Amino acid sequence: MSNSETFTIVVHGGAGTIRRKHLTEALEAEYRQALIDAVEVGSEILSGGGSALKAVEAAVVSLEDCVLFNAGRGSVFSADGSHEMDASIMCGKTLDAGAVAGVQSIKNPVSLAQQILAHSDHVMLAGDGAKDFAESRNMKLESDEYFYSEMRYKQWQKVAGTNQTALDHNIDVSDKKFGTVGAVALDQNGNVAAATSTGGITNKKYGRIGDSPIIGVGNYANNKTCAVSCTGDGEFFIRGVVAYDIAAMMEFTDCSLEHACKTVIHERVIKIGGEGGAIAVDAHGNISMEFNSAGMYRSYKQGNGKIITGIFES
Amino acid sequence: MSNSETFTIVVHGGAGTIRRKHLTEALEAEYRQALIDAVEVGSEILSGGGSALKAVEAAVVSLEDCVLFNAGRGSVFSADGSHEMDASIMCGKTLDAGAVAGVQSIKNPVSLAQQILAHSDHVMLAGDGAKDFAESRNMKLESDEYFYSEMRYKQWQKVAGTNQTALDHNIDVSDKKFGTVGAVALDQNGNVAAATSTGGITNKKYGRIGDSPIIGVGNYANNKTCAVSCTGDGEFFIRGVVAYDIAAMMEFTDCSLEHACKTVIHERVIKIGGEGGAIAVDAHGNISMEFNSAGMYRSYKQGNGKIITGIFES
Repeated sequence: MSNSETFTIVVHGGAGTIRRKHLTEALEAEYRQALIDAVEVGSEILSGGGSALKAVEAAVVSLEDCVLFNAGRGSVFSADGSHEMDASIMCGKTLDAGAVAGVQSIKNPVSLAQQILAHSDHVMLAGDGAKDFAESRNMKLESDEYFYSEMRYKQWQKVAGTNQTALDHNIDVSDKKFGTVGAVALDQNGNVAAATSTGGITNKKYGRIGDSPIIGVGNYANNKTCAVSCTGDGEFFIRGVVAYDIAAMMEFTDCSLEHACKTVIHERVIKIGGEGGAIAVDAHGNISMEFNSAGMYRSYKQGNGKIITGIFES
Repeated sequence: MSNSETFTIVVHGGAGTIRRKHLTEALEAEYRQALIDAVEVGSEILSGGGSALKAVEAAVVSLEDCVLFNAGRGSVFSADGSHEMDASIMCGKTLDAGAVAGVQSIKNPVSLAQQILAHSDHVMLAGDGAKDFAESRNMKLESDEYFYSEMRYKQWQKVAGTNQTALDHNIDVSDKKFGTVGAVALDQNGNVAAATSTGGITNKKYGRIGDSPIIGVGNYANNKTCAVSCTGDGEFFIRGVVAYDIAAMMEFTDCSLEHACKTVIHERVIKIGGEGGAIAVDAHGNISMEFNSAGMYRSYKQGNGKIITGIFES
């Protein structure tokens, strides 16, 4: 998909076995509205001349605040009944980055990642230490009740006390849903940025860190190439270094964003056994939303164009 | 450096401002012996037909057990007086990987990373969760006394209670030393592997995770290209996705290992402000040991050749 508008934003709400039969019309409408809301909040920043970095943070905050998605408020339960969240953000102009892994009680993990980007010498902070840093920055904490939802609790109860984990929705069926949210944007100054956030996998234990908070894996941004946010089988995405694989292929082979995303998601990720997708934007405003699973919650807006949303393959 | 021997192992013990004037002759001899020991233990496995994966684990265990290096036993003190260690390992044949971040009390973090590679559905585990996993695998734990050394304690006392961190040795001088250890190997079956381990930075807090445990950043292995273990400014190495940058440049531009390592370490890492180095081996037995700092503790052996060690630039 090619476009040379002055600014662009793309968001995703996770990929996986998302089929029409799994969604009621009402629920589908809710998902689409949440995606539109996220694009709108980011787009407003961009149309006012704001930075891609601010736009992707705001869009992801919007998705984190929505209980439908597995990130922020809607995060799934870990094995101990807590909510351990991961997030990352990267600026394509400066290559500054911030990431947080396995943090609890933070209302908006992506904003904590942004605070790390802006105010820490480090890129990646984890666990209680990350929470201490958040408190030192006076960030908003929330109680367990804020993160509670009956749907997530029931999902957890089905596997709690066992060694099983579950990816996200639909643990009854043999379906996979990679609950992650993300945004990529190009601003009017030609800078790109990417942000990614997740609540991980239901009933996870052992302090598992997935791909979302890893720079180069679940998230990457560089004006020279593109900004990418991934969603998928975290372990396979780590082994494929997926976000940077897309950027590196563009840089080293001088190919288009579209070619790089198609090749990585439909060939290279599949070759190592991974399922999922990625959204991406380059410095010319070209966008890509590729996935090798049945569906991916996604939406975008280029300049003053219409907001387009998609869930299923077509 | 080119060679087509049947097996090869390279190890490093960290890079940084390592100059002759900082080392007594006796201490220099101790460092060289420790590097030789690590190469020997790995080389013995390889010459007996063992796997590159086993060889890099054994070589890194040897370095972790040596109090001279900032990894395992010789790990520096965190802000709270504990020792938080990171490690990772990757098999170039299968692309299987294991990593551990911010773990305490584990005698050999690289072996925990290997246990994660072999026995976990996940790639990366952190903190207490990673320790729980280690206990479930009956791994060896050690008390605080094991990790105590007067040198490390004195280093910590110089910055304890402040917001300052310190990289490793020599916190008196304005020198930087990136305390990490690593190994890369090629076995007789043509498979490569990489392992990396670190105790992080003195007085670190907020659960900081550096580059060492991140697949694609501090460590990467793929038979198609090469195996890499990095040591340097963790934050810059993360932003440069350094280990995978070397592999991706080889794959996408069809260049030699030497060209990729030279370009990444001496141009691309420097461009983003990073200091450090990397060791690497490809499936043909070519090796590289590039660093853009004053020195890097390093050693290698190709087939039945002699063990060569180096510390300073020449």
